[in-house]
Amino acid sequence: MIPLRIRSSGVALPDNCVTSGELDSMLHHARGYCESRSGVAQRYFADGSLRQSRLGAQALQDALRRADLAPAGLDLVIGACAVPEQAIPATAVFIAQHAGVPAGVPAFDVNASCLSFLVALRLAAGMLADQQYRRIAVVAVDLASRGIDWDAPEASLIFGDGAAAIILERGAGGGIESFRYATYPEGARLCQIRGGGTAHNPRTAAVPADYLFQMDGKGVFRLASQHMGAFVADLLCDAGVTLADIDLVVPHQASHLGIEHMRRQLGIAPERMVDIYARHGNQVAASMPSALHHALDGQRASTGSRLLLIGTAAGLSLGGMVLAL
Amino acid sequence: MIPLRIRSSGVALPDNCVTSGELDSMLHHARGYCESRSGVAQRYFADGSLRQSRLGAQALQDALRRADLAPAGLDLVIGACAVPEQAIPATAVFIAQHAGVPAGVPAFDVNASCLSFLVALRLAAGMLADQQYRRIAVVAVDLASRGIDWDAPEASLIFGDGAAAIILERGAGGGIESFRYATYPEGARLCQIRGGGTAHNPRTAAVPADYLFQMDGKGVFRLASQHMGAFVADLLCDAGVTLADIDLVVPHQASHLGIEHMRRQLGIAPERMVDIYARHGNQVAASMPSALHHALDGQRASTGSRLLLIGTAAGLSLGGMVLAL
Repeated sequence: MIPLRIRSSGVALPDNCVTSGELDSMLHHARGYCESRSGVAQRYFADGSLRQSRLGAQALQDALRRADLAPAGLDLVIGACAVPEQAIPATAVFIAQHAGVPAGVPAFDVNASCLSFLVALRLAAGMLADQQYRRIAVVAVDLASRGIDWDAPEASLIFGDGAAAIILERGAGGGIESFRYATYPEGARLCQIRGGGTAHNPRTAAVPADYLFQMDGKGVFRLASQHMGAFVADLLCDAGVTLADIDLVVPHQASHLGIEHMRRQLGIAPERMVDIYARHGNQVAASMPSALHHALDGQRASTGSRLLLIGTAAGLSLGGMVLAL
Repeated sequence: MIPLRIRSSGVALPDNCVTSGELDSMLHHARGYCESRSGVAQRYFADGSLRQSRLGAQALQDALRRADLAPAGLDLVIGACAVPEQAIPATAVFIAQHAGVPAGVPAFDVNASCLSFLVALRLAAGMLADQQYRRIAVVAVDLASRGIDWDAPEASLIFGDGAAAIILERGAGGGIESFRYATYPEGARLCQIRGGGTAHNPRTAAVPADYLFQMDGKGVFRLASQHMGAFVADLLCDAGVTLADIDLVVPHQASHLGIEHMRRQLGIAPERMVDIYARHGNQVAASMPSALHHALDGQRASTGSRLLLIGTAAGLSLGGMVLAL
């Protein structure tokens, strides 16, 4: 086990709450269409002037407040977003700046699309275990609304903006019992934003649509389903536990069908699964840590609990962790 | 010390070598202007059709060949680029795909701008030390040419495209004797590409110039100089060594003035410093691992050598490592 302790967590949402009824009106659908199609009752959208890092800093400040810590108490800030604020520098730099983290504290990003938080958690545990850092903040913030293609019926209705921050310390008891991440590049184009980097930019004839999120939901489902059973079995086996030993499952809040499929596949009751999807939508990389925050804040998980963090990311990647609190 | 062994390294360059004389013609400067101004005799530029990940895969294949390894011998691929190929998914996914890395091998990115490789090296060492992975490839590839603003006299002449890959294993004798990374967000806008993320995209009225690299070279120099002396002293102190114990310095190849200033500040002879800048330019995140590759390939460093890896990144960040081979 890699020792790890969650000192605190925090979240932040933009002011603008958008119900599925409002989307019905905006997109000229019959009343009830967007909610029944997406499973999302409401989600939050940033207005055009909000910078991603400002929302991330709010989540970090919430986590600091709950831990009764000053920003100077952090040794490292890891940004864990799917899409950055800008290509250069790292989003963590802006988050640290807006949260008042003192100059000199290192800030860099980890990017594993929707599972950036999970991977950052694993990397942070490694950095804490070898004693270089005492306290690390992982901050995930995504503004999916900036990349929604309103002409894509499937992908446009599921997303919401949001931020979550987790403050980590060296473990004394709890920690990572197992971690797995598996990438299937045959699915590299099942979820993508083609723009934003060197492949499609103004110098190589990019078009505005290159900056919108594209998803082949059926393809993702097919490829993920093919591997998920064995993946979870291996993850539990590595930890030396069975599903019966898991107190709570914290899935990436990908979609209502995805969460429900996962729950049925694992064969667990709804009360053993965290589901904040209907009131937040899929918050991309902020989704899993937001769900984790809600579980901790709602006393559904506490010291001694064993969690299964699990999900898929663009790549296509599967990621999971057995985490003892 | 965190045990770490460099099993092999590899590099790749695009076909198109551009001399400073050619730039003089293209930019209507007097013969000799571009080389004297930038210190770069030649650099390599990808043509418009080359994908970043293809070049990264070539470097990874070069490193695999030199280690006599098949792609199946890798347990993890970390992408360490300053700018990705596209916003989603991670560049490492495409690199793994093009290099023939088997499905299921995890692939994600670490982003610390020009020092992404240095940070990835530190994180990889942590993942190897706790025994989860046996062999990790870190691949840095940047196509700076896609973001050069030809109207910016300072920043336009220094960059070149390139890729480098390092294959890492658990250490037997060598390893990381010290690592430091320090971020000064007051310098967050000294080096930047404003586009590519959520801040400036077609939905928030981006203009083509947002996708070009901007640099305030004097500002970078001023802020970096202010902190570099103490930073290096602390880094050496952490490792319990002095500069006399360092066999070779591998700096980020930022600029000829930057490298020369670093050399004078450290007070070391040119033969103790790796300088590939004049024939490659600043290859962004690929710069430091390319310099490391040249040092290893040219027998300037080998088992038993102690290296100082050092540089600055957009952020503004300072990063360094004392690495015993």
